Amino acid sequence: MQSSEFILAADIIYMCGHSLGPQPKTAKYKIEQTIKDWGDNAALAWNKSKWIDLSSEVAGKIAPLIGASENEVIICDSTSVNLYKVLMSALQLQNNRKIIVTTEDNFPADLYIAQGIQAFNNGIRLKTLKADALLENLDASVAVLMLTHVNYRDGAMHDMVQITKYAHDFGIVVIWDLSHSVGAVPVDLKACRADFAIGCTYKYLNGGPGSPAFVYVNSAHHSKIKSPIFGWMGHDQPFAFTDQYHATACANYYGGTPPILSLSALEGALSVFDDTQLRDLYVLSQERSLYLINALEELDLKILTPKNTPRGGHIAFIHPQGYALSRALIEQKVICDYRHPDLIRLCVNPLYLGIDEINRCIEIIRKILKEQLYRSAKYLQKTKVT
Amino acid sequence: MQSSEFILAADIIYMCGHSLGPQPKTAKYKIEQTIKDWGDNAALAWNKSKWIDLSSEVAGKIAPLIGASENEVIICDSTSVNLYKVLMSALQLQNNRKIIVTTEDNFPADLYIAQGIQAFNNGIRLKTLKADALLENLDASVAVLMLTHVNYRDGAMHDMVQITKYAHDFGIVVIWDLSHSVGAVPVDLKACRADFAIGCTYKYLNGGPGSPAFVYVNSAHHSKIKSPIFGWMGHDQPFAFTDQYHATACANYYGGTPPILSLSALEGALSVFDDTQLRDLYVLSQERSLYLINALEELDLKILTPKNTPRGGHIAFIHPQGYALSRALIEQKVICDYRHPDLIRLCVNPLYLGIDEINRCIEIIRKILKEQLYRSAKYLQKTKVT
Repeated sequence: MQSSEFILAADIIYMCGHSLGPQPKTAKYKIEQTIKDWGDNAALAWNKSKWIDLSSEVAGKIAPLIGASENEVIICDSTSVNLYKVLMSALQLQNNRKIIVTTEDNFPADLYIAQGIQAFNNGIRLKTLKADALLENLDASVAVLMLTHVNYRDGAMHDMVQITKYAHDFGIVVIWDLSHSVGAVPVDLKACRADFAIGCTYKYLNGGPGSPAFVYVNSAHHSKIKSPIFGWMGHDQPFAFTDQYHATACANYYGGTPPILSLSALEGALSVFDDTQLRDLYVLSQERSLYLINALEELDLKILTPKNTPRGGHIAFIHPQGYALSRALIEQKVICDYRHPDLIRLCVNPLYLGIDEINRCIEIIRKILKEQLYRSAKYLQKTKVT
Repeated sequence: MQSSEFILAADIIYMCGHSLGPQPKTAKYKIEQTIKDWGDNAALAWNKSKWIDLSSEVAGKIAPLIGASENEVIICDSTSVNLYKVLMSALQLQNNRKIIVTTEDNFPADLYIAQGIQAFNNGIRLKTLKADALLENLDASVAVLMLTHVNYRDGAMHDMVQITKYAHDFGIVVIWDLSHSVGAVPVDLKACRADFAIGCTYKYLNGGPGSPAFVYVNSAHHSKIKSPIFGWMGHDQPFAFTDQYHATACANYYGGTPPILSLSALEGALSVFDDTQLRDLYVLSQERSLYLINALEELDLKILTPKNTPRGGHIAFIHPQGYALSRALIEQKVICDYRHPDLIRLCVNPLYLGIDEINRCIEIIRKILKEQLYRSAKYLQKTKVT
């Protein structure tokens, strides 16, 4: 198919949207407009082009995709910085508990943020558990449970409603990282009563490389907590330039001046979801990824992604020559990615990937495996980002 | 003049570069290239277009403008988030001292960050002093001195070398905010042996609205300190996805994935400084701003900016109808800004503002004052960003 909404060369089979979404035409249009506004009006564009309202405009478009109210979502900073802020707030809510629990297989960047907090805050301890031993290890000593909804490697998906409820019964504050969910999987933060969530916008929301991240703060907490970083854009009167910080209602998770160029690309990109029902998109992606999993199993590839339990928007398999195989696939225009030591990920996003492309992908993998094309010496040289 | 390097309409007198620099043609070119690269190559552009190296490319261009080595500068996040990181690190270096000192007239956003740290860290106390009582109040009880080099209101400039040395004699760690200096005033961080600096890139570096900020960490501290936010881009092997964080040599102040669109505009913008000697630019700006100050004094305006001591790149005067006067000026194409309750700021940047524009600006102010044009009712309605 190759959706006409995205800029993608006709011969490309783009299966790397779990890393970076391709460019929506609406994103291109919007950022070109912003470049023109900066050129035409410079500082005056903050008012004329409503840059000052852009973060909340974008929040208003993301909120319905994650089952949140508009006043519970803020767009700012990176996922890592946002995780730092909500983890610190969560610990502040739990002043007699000191343990952060997560799974060993959580995204390393999330583990790093918790390790930093452990290093800087006496007594705070990060405890990592095997995913299948998670629930049995939760108890009333745990301050915060921090989990990633869809696993970045195998695409397996946690049951947010069940886990959040289980943790809440012990008085644990729950933070969900939705980086691999938002835009791919319907999420209902209200239904699961999550305390906090954070996530990235350049994967399934197609916001562009390094587009700003989001924070969700359950409105039940707004009056009780603060962000540790008192960012001036979160002041209820940022341009009054008063001496004392006074946060907005959303407990302020804003940072500094928003990155308008990156933010406007994201705003444009979100137009894709104006006419898209995320639930229908998800049903399609599950059908097609199951079809792909079954075909790859027939090629004797070892699939890591669960077939019979809920999964996210990508699938993953392993191969001893994973890196070389990923390079051979990319040379044949199947854009995928590789994770050390042997993992290949393929994203099945019905927004721009049709059944025709999936069939072509399967045929290309079959040919590469049969002819052992991954053995070519040219695939040995590693690139920086893999 | 209206430099051919910037996109500015011929009739505009742009004197608001202390807020947002106008658009360099090289910035426009570079971001358009990045939009094309994203469209053409999506995730593959991280390698093909060297996005992964872009932060350090940009750091390499900013380092010489502030007298730093390339390995002491990192481009990431916002000024506020970066100030948070270096303040936390500075306090970590001073584990027996708890007082952060700054001036009352420091930029409010910087005060807010310190207030947040005070709120989240038992015992830490922010002490604000009148600028003229600063040195006499420094002693060995002070942990950190945090100052903004050029004042955002009146443009007055601290003596970095003298103050840093004075503070160091008491064992105080010194952080400089260079937001209103970098690109306007030659700064030599090495000469003054500053411990940390942070700053913004959308004012005199013309990087575009909300372009990413910078952090300077004196290399003497690299092995002793950490950032409180263990950002994955600062891992020495970010794509190894190991469980444990291990920072790069620059003690890691990187956050998450860099905002490539905003960052590439900044990279392009910095080309303006390839053929510009900052010292020559500064001499010109001081000559021209003195000329402007003298002319405005003759119009009986009360100038806040010091005439006979060093100042930054903008000047400021007060007027009882400051807001309405700023709107009248903007309507006459003199782009300035207003700060509550009565302050008007005019930036004199020789990169794109010649003596002709300054003379036109003076004539326009003379006419507005003489005819009391600021009394028009149409200037009463306030805009969001002022």
